[in-house]
Amino acid sequence: MNPLDTTEFKKQGHMIIDFLADYYENISNYPVLSQVEPNYLKKLLPSFAPSNPEPIETILEDYQKHIIPGITHWQSPNYFAYFPSSGSTAGFLGEILSTGLNVVGFNWISSPAATELENVVIDWLGEILNLPKSFLFKGGGGGVLLGTTCEGILGTLVVARDKILSKIGSENAHKLVVYGSDQTHCAVQKAAHIIGINPKNFRAIKTNKLNSFALLPESLLSTIENDLKNGLVPCYLCVTVGTTSTTAIDPVRKLCNVAKDYGIWVHVDAAYAGSACICPEFRYLIDGVEDADSFSLNAHKWFLTNLDCCCLWLKDPNSLIKCLSTTNSEYLENSASDSKQVVDYKDWQVTLSRRFRALKVWFVLRSYGVDNLRNFLRSHVEMAKTFEGLVKMDKRFEIIVPRKLALVCFRILPYGKKVADGKVTNGEAKLIGKKVANGKVTNGEAQLISSEDVVANEINRKLLDSINGSGDVYMTHAVVEGVFVIRCAIGATLTEEMHVIKAWKVVQEHADVILKDKNGSIFV
Amino acid sequence: MNPLDTTEFKKQGHMIIDFLADYYENISNYPVLSQVEPNYLKKLLPSFAPSNPEPIETILEDYQKHIIPGITHWQSPNYFAYFPSSGSTAGFLGEILSTGLNVVGFNWISSPAATELENVVIDWLGEILNLPKSFLFKGGGGGVLLGTTCEGILGTLVVARDKILSKIGSENAHKLVVYGSDQTHCAVQKAAHIIGINPKNFRAIKTNKLNSFALLPESLLSTIENDLKNGLVPCYLCVTVGTTSTTAIDPVRKLCNVAKDYGIWVHVDAAYAGSACICPEFRYLIDGVEDADSFSLNAHKWFLTNLDCCCLWLKDPNSLIKCLSTTNSEYLENSASDSKQVVDYKDWQVTLSRRFRALKVWFVLRSYGVDNLRNFLRSHVEMAKTFEGLVKMDKRFEIIVPRKLALVCFRILPYGKKVADGKVTNGEAKLIGKKVANGKVTNGEAQLISSEDVVANEINRKLLDSINGSGDVYMTHAVVEGVFVIRCAIGATLTEEMHVIKAWKVVQEHADVILKDKNGSIFV
Repeated sequence: MNPLDTTEFKKQGHMIIDFLADYYENISNYPVLSQVEPNYLKKLLPSFAPSNPEPIETILEDYQKHIIPGITHWQSPNYFAYFPSSGSTAGFLGEILSTGLNVVGFNWISSPAATELENVVIDWLGEILNLPKSFLFKGGGGGVLLGTTCEGILGTLVVARDKILSKIGSENAHKLVVYGSDQTHCAVQKAAHIIGINPKNFRAIKTNKLNSFALLPESLLSTIENDLKNGLVPCYLCVTVGTTSTTAIDPVRKLCNVAKDYGIWVHVDAAYAGSACICPEFRYLIDGVEDADSFSLNAHKWFLTNLDCCCLWLKDPNSLIKCLSTTNSEYLENSASDSKQVVDYKDWQVTLSRRFRALKVWFVLRSYGVDNLRNFLRSHVEMAKTFEGLVKMDKRFEIIVPRKLALVCFRILPYGKKVADGKVTNGEAKLIGKKVANGKVTNGEAQLISSEDVVANEINRKLLDSINGSGDVYMTHAVVEGVFVIRCAIGATLTEEMHVIKAWKVVQEHADVILKDKNGSIFV
Repeated sequence: MNPLDTTEFKKQGHMIIDFLADYYENISNYPVLSQVEPNYLKKLLPSFAPSNPEPIETILEDYQKHIIPGITHWQSPNYFAYFPSSGSTAGFLGEILSTGLNVVGFNWISSPAATELENVVIDWLGEILNLPKSFLFKGGGGGVLLGTTCEGILGTLVVARDKILSKIGSENAHKLVVYGSDQTHCAVQKAAHIIGINPKNFRAIKTNKLNSFALLPESLLSTIENDLKNGLVPCYLCVTVGTTSTTAIDPVRKLCNVAKDYGIWVHVDAAYAGSACICPEFRYLIDGVEDADSFSLNAHKWFLTNLDCCCLWLKDPNSLIKCLSTTNSEYLENSASDSKQVVDYKDWQVTLSRRFRALKVWFVLRSYGVDNLRNFLRSHVEMAKTFEGLVKMDKRFEIIVPRKLALVCFRILPYGKKVADGKVTNGEAKLIGKKVANGKVTNGEAQLISSEDVVANEINRKLLDSINGSGDVYMTHAVVEGVFVIRCAIGATLTEEMHVIKAWKVVQEHADVILKDKNGSIFV
């Protein structure tokens, strides 16, 4: 057995390329959201690994027959769920080249090119984002390619924690407070828990629709002041540019100004929206980032870089290295590291082993060029405008928050605008509220929002399930201020305007059916 | 611009497959360890990303000219450094198929097959490792494919911490103690720091050569007892099966027995050696694992699975889920998750986004079959035996610890066995010690080990630098009990007996030159 026999490698490699090309060619024919039932696969596969080799043809046949039906097709042009995972030929090529090299670039010596190309693309990306020089290697800062934003948040949280504990003593760890809004990604709360922040000391500061769910500086200020009064110690603030639910944009500069006075580490999480900031017209979204300590975006979301790739920049990488460098590891020492002339990325991240992610970013930037990348992102924003326009033209629907980039948040109003205007009679509303309360929504929850919204939520949930059950498109939802909204996130690489127009038709068709049910079970 | 144009995807994809096949074909012609100088790449690449697209041919030309010289070739048959990163055609194919699908499998619904195939291969692997049923899904336990062992350790540490803090209160977090040996991987100490364990409370319990650097149960016991006397709270023990420096094997069962009495979470880290345990004759290495709480190995090390892939099993996955599940994330909720009939792997790991790693494990197991995989690992052990035999035949060298699997730890003795036997006169030894102390080694350190060892360390360091500088092979080092040892880790996929024999010749040739220098500068 030679598992790297060149002839076999070539033969099977070409086979998979053709297989994947066929996949992209036919991707629209698959239901976007997998329609399998839980535990479908166990029944189809043997309980034990085979003792003897099986030919690649058999494995691919099983793949097509058993795995593909269980795939939710993130690369489908009809995929509008969560945020995109936008792959590309260049991203794919860079990734598979890295997979072929299979180097473990934990320190410089283990593959100098893996480290140095990462330094280069971090500065290239920083330049096109117009990040302040202080975040770039060429300006004394620097950055790293991680797997996900979660890792970036975890790492910077540790730095922020250790900085403060070095002053107030580790016995005061339970006093540290981490700030975000009620729209901040759950990764922050999870990372805070992991590093030992008291769960009671995570502040999900309330936002509201009136302010498009952005974190208000005055809310932050009063929360901090209140914590100080209670003897707590402010530690870390996550400012989000483009929240998951609605792409809310926290005002970076103003929030940094508040945080600065209290010595709080500010991380700007632009996981989704950051990519758009390479377009001058969207760069204002991160204005003020020069006052933050760290900044990150996910190139695997909306930058044509196949999963996974989070880009993290810091003004003071040494603070990160101080916290995350390994000790007691003589087996990793070498003269290049001793010289202090090189970057050892193991000291910039939680894990030791790391893949050569810079290759795919390099391939994407060079294969498409910055001008085309900008235009590509703009095309998604234009398509989102189109979709938003279509929603607005249908009086049965409302846009929940003004669209910022390529995410449209909308919902259907089961009684038309009448309900939204609050013209439904009390009697009706009560009845409806009660019925729903017997279903999924508890009485407690139901009381928090209007009876109209309770009904609307149920209808929209039903509408979304109906849309996704069709397999024609896949959208997901969010709940903001108790209101269930349908999210249409445009950004899959293959999506064109015709797909967006079709998606809207699908929504309308399913809405027609559901609204006809108005006199059916739910509304009796 | 269509970044997923099928024709281009096919054309460029085939090009990269041929490119990689050529790479494997010619890999022996490259210096194994990259010979570039720090910061070589910055000078070769432009300072800014290109505005316009560049053809794939140009990018690949630059790759060959600028990146390849900066690569340390982990796939080279002459690679014997660290531990292997053993790629294979099947591992590669599974990985690129996953890269092409580009799904983000954070929860079941986001691609049921990604989750369910992971469940299947976790049980398949568990069966061939003869893990107790309690670690398998089919036995009420379960597992997950992570990027690296570091993530597995971090996650289980959080569980152990929270379990104890739920009893003693989080204000006592500073009392928790984490145990390992002075041979335990640095990842444990780093993870303990990340989750907020007081750095003073990480116990690197001393091991010694007499016991092949294994952690002794009695040492653990007395350390625990001492901590308890001081009012501290034992929390977590990392038992290592196959340490990085010398493949030391901590006695699993006995250590679990000690830990059990104190309610300590036991994690068995078999990152390297775990793969070998699929062979019945090596399975004894993890005997007693049934008494541990969690167990992990890196399939990307010695299981033909391209980077990255750590397999983690737990008896009580719910304890992990309880700690790592996300809250406040309505946008991730769905009826499949609500039904509790599915696994949502986001709750089993630190990060949210995750790649479809199960595919490559499935491809490896099916393409090669378990019997061949066993024989393949055995062949590496046999080659290591050959290498060990060659070292033993040369009287100038000594084996530092008895070989366990496919890692041979050896060193040259500059004065021949005479020095090892301690027959050098005091006068000479002093003189030598002094000279070295003027060089790299401080007086303080020099006092810890014998003067002979100080000299031997310098010579072996010089020998290793000389070997690696040749580009013919790449080995790395470790330091145990102050002694510098050269590590020859056999396991690169392409390595055959002839490479091992050649590697030994390279060592001997460089030793010849260095020992001729005996009357040169160092020995004057």
